[in-house]
This record gives sequence, C-alpha cells and structure tokens, in this order.
Amino acid sequence: MNPKRIHELRAYFRDRLINDTLAFWVEHAIDTEMGGFTFFLDRQGRTLSTDKPMWSHGRAAWLFARLYNELEPRKEWLDLSRHAVDFLRRFGFADDGRVFYSVTRDGRPLRRRRYLFAETFAIIGLAEYARAAGDAGALGLARSTLELVRDHLAHARLPPKVNPATRRTRGHSMAMIQVNTLQVLRQADPDPKYDSMIDSAIDELFRCFVHPERAALFETVGPEGELLLDLPEGRCINPGHAIETAWFLMAEGRRRGDRHLIERALPILEWSLDLGWDKRDGGLFSFVDIDGHQPDQLEWDMKLWWPHTEAIYATLLAHHLTGENRYLEWFEKVLAYAIGHFPDPEHGEWFGYLHRDGTVALDLKGNMWKGLFHLPRQQLNCYLLLTAMAK
Amino acid sequence: MNPKRIHELRAYFRDRLINDTLAFWVEHAIDTEMGGFTFFLDRQGRTLSTDKPMWSHGRAAWLFARLYNELEPRKEWLDLSRHAVDFLRRFGFADDGRVFYSVTRDGRPLRRRRYLFAETFAIIGLAEYARAAGDAGALGLARSTLELVRDHLAHARLPPKVNPATRRTRGHSMAMIQVNTLQVLRQADPDPKYDSMIDSAIDELFRCFVHPERAALFETVGPEGELLLDLPEGRCINPGHAIETAWFLMAEGRRRGDRHLIERALPILEWSLDLGWDKRDGGLFSFVDIDGHQPDQLEWDMKLWWPHTEAIYATLLAHHLTGENRYLEWFEKVLAYAIGHFPDPEHGEWFGYLHRDGTVALDLKGNMWKGLFHLPRQQLNCYLLLTAMAK
Repeated sequence: MNPKRIHELRAYFRDRLINDTLAFWVEHAIDTEMGGFTFFLDRQGRTLSTDKPMWSHGRAAWLFARLYNELEPRKEWLDLSRHAVDFLRRFGFADDGRVFYSVTRDGRPLRRRRYLFAETFAIIGLAEYARAAGDAGALGLARSTLELVRDHLAHARLPPKVNPATRRTRGHSMAMIQVNTLQVLRQADPDPKYDSMIDSAIDELFRCFVHPERAALFETVGPEGELLLDLPEGRCINPGHAIETAWFLMAEGRRRGDRHLIERALPILEWSLDLGWDKRDGGLFSFVDIDGHQPDQLEWDMKLWWPHTEAIYATLLAHHLTGENRYLEWFEKVLAYAIGHFPDPEHGEWFGYLHRDGTVALDLKGNMWKGLFHLPRQQLNCYLLLTAMAK
Repeated sequence: MNPKRIHELRAYFRDRLINDTLAFWVEHAIDTEMGGFTFFLDRQGRTLSTDKPMWSHGRAAWLFARLYNELEPRKEWLDLSRHAVDFLRRFGFADDGRVFYSVTRDGRPLRRRRYLFAETFAIIGLAEYARAAGDAGALGLARSTLELVRDHLAHARLPPKVNPATRRTRGHSMAMIQVNTLQVLRQADPDPKYDSMIDSAIDELFRCFVHPERAALFETVGPEGELLLDLPEGRCINPGHAIETAWFLMAEGRRRGDRHLIERALPILEWSLDLGWDKRDGGLFSFVDIDGHQPDQLEWDMKLWWPHTEAIYATLLAHHLTGENRYLEWFEKVLAYAIGHFPDPEHGEWFGYLHRDGTVALDLKGNMWKGLFHLPRQQLNCYLLLTAMAK
C-alpha cells in the first residue's frame, strides 16, 4: 500500500471510529439511570427494547478499555468501560457463575442460553478493563469465568441440542472464540499457560474445521473433524466467521513471529472470500453451501455488516504480513462495497442488514447481536495496523 | 362470486392440488426403504437432508387422510396417510409420551423442543387417519397425546424460555393451535367435551390476544392479555398467523351456526390484511410492528408462501359467510399475487421464500417447516368451499 493511501485510510478510520461510531453509541446507548447500556436502537438511536443483552456488555467493556489501552488513555473511555463492567458484575452473573444471556433494564435475569458466548465476552471485557484500571478483582472474575467455561467444555455440562447417542457434532464457534478470548486474557494476565491453551484451540481448528481438500473452513463437523456432507449444517460455510478465525490466527502468528502459522491461516481467508463473495451484486453472503446447494438459512443471501468488517481487517493484515497485492485488492474491494452500502448518511453509524441487492432490509442500529463490537473493533484495529505500516 | 368464476376456480384448485402439489411430493418425498417421508427437498425434488421432522409427518398423515375423507376415498391416499402414521408411531414418540422434533432417516431421535407443536400435529394426523381407517389404536394415541399436551399446559411442565420470576408472557400459537387440533379430533371422536375445550381456547384468544382498541391480534401478551408495547415481541404482529386464527374461528362459527362468533372473527382478518399487506410491492409481510417500528426478525419483509395460502382461504370463507364484496376483492388480490409469484414454472409446486420485491430468495420446496400442509390444505379447503358455493 502506498504511503498516501496509508495516511488517508489511517485518518479515515480514526475519524469514523471516534466521530461516527462511538459518537452514536455514546449519545444514545448509555443508561445513566439504571446502569449499563441500551443496545436495541432504531435508525435514529431511539430505544426499541430496554432489555439488556449481557454479551454486548462484555463486548462494550472490552472496546472502551481497549481504546484506553491502545489508542489514548482518555478517562471518558475508562469510565465507559467501568460503566459496562459494573452492570456486568452486579447483574450479569448467576449463582452458579454462568453469565445470563439477557436481563431487564434494571438487571433482573431474563434468559440463559445453552452456549457459553456470554461468558467468553464477559472474560474479554473484564480482562481488558482489568488491564486498563489495574483492577485485580475484575481480573480474578475473568480468570474464574474462564475456568467455568473450560470446565463446562471438558465435561460437556450443557444440555446438547441434538441427542448425543444419535449424532455427535463439533462446532467451529467455540474453538474460534477461545483463541480470541485467551489472546485478550493473556495480555492482562501474562502467564505461559495461556499460550498452551491457545495452541490447543488452534490445533482443534486445523485438525477438525480446516479442510484444504475442500478449500473451506466448516462450521459443523463430526467429533474428529469428519465432514458431514449429508447434512445442511455439515455443508454450511459461514464466510464471515471463517475470515474472523483467519485473522485471529494471523494475529497470533504475528505476535509470535510464527511465519508458518500465518502461512496456514492465509488460505482460510482466501477460500472464504472466494466462496462468500457475491459475484452478481457484490458483498459477502451470510451462508454458503460447500456443494453449491442453497443454504437453508432464510438470511443466507443477506449482506450483514459484521462479515464485511472482519474481511476489511483480515485482508489489510494479510497484505501487511505478506506484502502481496491480491490481499490489497480484496481489501479495497470489500472496503468499497462496505462504505458504499452500510453507512447511514442521515443518522450515522452503519446499517446492519441489507438485502442481497444492497438495499437496506433492517434499518436498526443495534439489537441482540449488533452493538459496540465488530465495526469499532475493525476501525480501531485498522487504525493501529496502518499506524504500524506508516512507520 | 359469480358462478363462472366459482366453476373456474374449483377446477383450478382441484387440478393444482392433485396434479401439481401432491404429484410433486408423491414423486420425491416418499421413503420406501426406511419409511416415512423426506421433507428437505430442493427445487427439483432432490434430497437436501434425510433427517425427518416429526411434525411434518403428523401434518402429512392428516392431509392424506383428509383427502380420503373429504375429497375421494382413494386407497392410495389412505395408504400414504398410513405410511406417515406408521413412521410416527414407530419412531415419533419418546418414552414419556412426548413427540420428537426430528429423527434420523432410520428413526433415531435427534431433537426435542420446548414447545408442543410436534404433539398437536401428531394428534391431527392420528385423528384424521383414525377416522379414515377406523383405527381405534390411532385414535387412542391421539387422545392420550392430547391429555399429555393439556397436562403440560395446565402444570407448565416445560422449561420456560424466559425466567418466570422476572417476566411472564403468553403466546398466541398455543391457544390458536388448540382450536384447530380439537376441531380435527372432535370429528374423529364425537364427544361434547371437545366443544367446551374449544370454547376455552376461543375464550383465551379473545380475552388475551385480540385487541380491538389496537385493531390487531398480538402474538405475545402478558398473562392476562396485557399489551407489552415496550418489547419488540410485545409489538409483534404475525399477519399470517392471525389470519389463520381468523379462519379457524370462522370455521367454528360456520359449523355451529354461530353468527356472533363469525362477526367477532372477521375483524381479525381485516386488521391483519391491512397491517400485513405490502403497499409497495404487494404480498404479505412476515412480521409487522404495531407501532410502526421495524420488526426485529431478519425475515420481516420476506414474502412466505404460507401466510398467502391462509389468506386465500380465509378471504374466500369470509366472502362466502357474509356475501360481502370486500372479502372477494381481497381474495382475488392475494390469489393474484400468490399465483404470480410462488409457483415454480419449471419443476412444479411453490417456492416458499421470496424477497420483499417478489424475487425468489430460497428455491427449496421443503424444509423443517415447508411440507405437505399449508398449500395443499388451502387448495383442498378452497375446492370444498367452492363446491358448497356452487350448490
């Protein structure tokens, strides 16, 4: 990438992060009365539901602390991270140590889920905040929550969705999220044990989900990574998810100076872009069937914001790590599509859900899944990487 | 409706039912080797998954027996109903009497769900088959499954989705499906107790879900029917669902000669058509927010086949029962949209899932939800009603 473009994009991502994304959420999402954040927001930032998803609080706690730790130590960002952490600590944890999926505006428990993502996002929020605030209690809670997650996984304590006597499967999400969760925790809590835990998760990813013979990373496989091509879920590729995994792996390789790991991660990125890109209308599909059937998810052809943010950062990182031009071309292509379709010119921030043809399907700004995470993380990560590239 | 149009439509629905819908499923869906039906079919009728949803077996058992009972006593239809009933009896029931959500091709249990729809569809399949075949065992199983459903509902035996200490809600689906389930069972098992059970379900529908002051039937309300307008689920209108309820109620009024019940059902139909119709592109939305927000379901603006089939029969029935022209206009409008968009001109049957603009989003013919039910039921019901109108 030429220095002019680096300079221009660096300024662009920083400006959009602070003056658009953060500005929108800080204006509309903070609940000063009852604590925490209101994430269900319409196009203009008005509240659609006062229920509070807990994983979004973990993510927001992480983001604001990360900004404080990596961009600038602004007191306002530390305070906002603490605002999320306080709500999470007071109302997020059940007596058994698990984290609720959602609570009411005033913190009364609504739902639990079968899976452990509320827990993993609580861990990154608490850990990044602990690093920013020097809060040993938050770090301790992150550590004990990790122990709970590992205990549940090791002993399969959660009720399985499918009868395990009939069919056992393994899902990509949990291996993937462990890599990122442990990366964040390691930075707050330097202990070599996290490296070996990350090694195990990376090993599981390559052993079970990455299939070079089919040029794809699969979402659901058999217990030992067997392909389950008779099942729609066994044929399912989630390009955004696979791309996110690719950059978690590249980031690990970059940190360790491990070229081999980077070389193994790059094909995942390329396969997923090739499989996921919509050659007719542009943008990344939400789901693809490896055998060319139509996926069975109703939203398979919708263009969602988050796979695009993941692809923007992953391609920029791949270009930086390899110097190869094809990653730069992909970066510019995905970025052009994203900037051309997702930003809301009237009320700021991004739309999250487009039809296949790029028209807006849902104009909300926040819901159970869309909050302070993928977009600002991408803007921050791109800014930091471009800063390194500028040197 | 003028006699010429009645004659023309009567022939049309009968032809499409037998030569298109049934022909497609009979050609592609019967598993002669392992029993039961393969419902996951692509556009051409090729298998997308061999897993077997049990509620679809209850529905198919009902449909074929209904054809035998109401259209013609063709042995082939009785045999096909038995084919579904046999699979349901052998593999559908857990030891505790509940019905599995899905099993493998050879009948090994895969999933159970929190709700009781697999049970209610098993009841209608078994009951209609019992009436066709004079099978007392099937009727007994339908009866005992009804007892199980009523016991679960009376004692709230299923784990709630939301913590009931925090929020208690009531869903429209279960009251609605009881009306139809009991109507079918009553026909096979004439016992006055079913009338009073139907009265209770109808009472619940009007007391809790039908809100004339908001001109809508709501999907989710408080325990006593309180509106929950602060919550997306409390603002959610499902036009197809409400229209289906409207014709269940009209059918009950027609059977009983109860004009008052019919008069109370008609506004539900009108509200739902007014709320659900897409004035820009035509067709019925899948979800609408009563306060004009955007619904939070990703598929809110997609046009699904089943709300259209429900609206076609409901408007025809309303026209027949009232003689009013506006229902005839709605009937012709919905039918024209449906015929113009859903049928697959190349491989037969209907597409199930269109984008808002009417283009095909998923070209599959069958999945966990789309099987031998809404479309053939509508075609059969319209044919039978037009036959009555012709007299």
